[in-house]
Amino acid sequence: MLGRDYAGQVCSISRTLEVVGERWTLLVLRDVVLGRHRFDELVDSLGVTRTVLSRRLSHLVDEGVLERTAYQQRPERYAYHLTDKGRALTPVIAHLMWWGDTYYPEPAGPPRLLVHRSCGGPVTGRFACEACGDQLRAGDIATEPGPGLPRT
Amino acid sequence: MLGRDYAGQVCSISRTLEVVGERWTLLVLRDVVLGRHRFDELVDSLGVTRTVLSRRLSHLVDEGVLERTAYQQRPERYAYHLTDKGRALTPVIAHLMWWGDTYYPEPAGPPRLLVHRSCGGPVTGRFACEACGDQLRAGDIATEPGPGLPRT
Repeated sequence: MLGRDYAGQVCSISRTLEVVGERWTLLVLRDVVLGRHRFDELVDSLGVTRTVLSRRLSHLVDEGVLERTAYQQRPERYAYHLTDKGRALTPVIAHLMWWGDTYYPEPAGPPRLLVHRSCGGPVTGRFACEACGDQLRAGDIATEPGPGLPRT
Repeated sequence: MLGRDYAGQVCSISRTLEVVGERWTLLVLRDVVLGRHRFDELVDSLGVTRTVLSRRLSHLVDEGVLERTAYQQRPERYAYHLTDKGRALTPVIAHLMWWGDTYYPEPAGPPRLLVHRSCGGPVTGRFACEACGDQLRAGDIATEPGPGLPRT
């Protein structure tokens, strides 16, 4: 468990990072989003050792982020697909990508685009207020202690 | 640089993770967002060693995510604030938090809430299509090779 737990942190960000914060894990998920589902495809794409990939995939399967199905017997070979819980990480992955596109641009432009499947338009991520419907910037947002915050 | 570089990955997600993907870095940024700006406040909150915190902060300052200002002389003491580039990571941090709130909920509810500063309403993050204006779910989004993707 070394390098995974953030002891003493009562925080939903820490909980999330315990699941997806290890080195390579978010890139494994990126690859699955991009359609690389088989163990060997993932090894080739990422250039990690089979041992590291195996550990990352097992952890993601244990946590219900990916599901594993055998696509071949003798020898058994497995493919990995996102669960609904895994698909719910799409905004995290998209915003990591957009931030990289903005602040570390490739000279030729972004390596990947996210487009609206039905109309082909470019996708953006926005903050909105559920009460008044306003579209928000980071500066419009405040943090408040929630009900789950321990009193100190 | 060990544990920071993702060699051979032409990908904006990898570039971003080279800057913020190291252990503790996103929690350092969370703390700064929550108003902990001084080195000693950060050490206390995170429970990391001063050496690790120092390294993470230096890397974030070098990359222009945080800016460092001396708030005391003899001995010199420093405070760290988000730059615009750092503030642009807010959606990543918010979505990591919301995912944790959803899938690893505290029994009493979320430890932290994000609210609209002016009206107090709850904040959400959404995908939208810039062309047709539709609000999108992950399943409505496709990925396409962009101009910066190397041809293989």
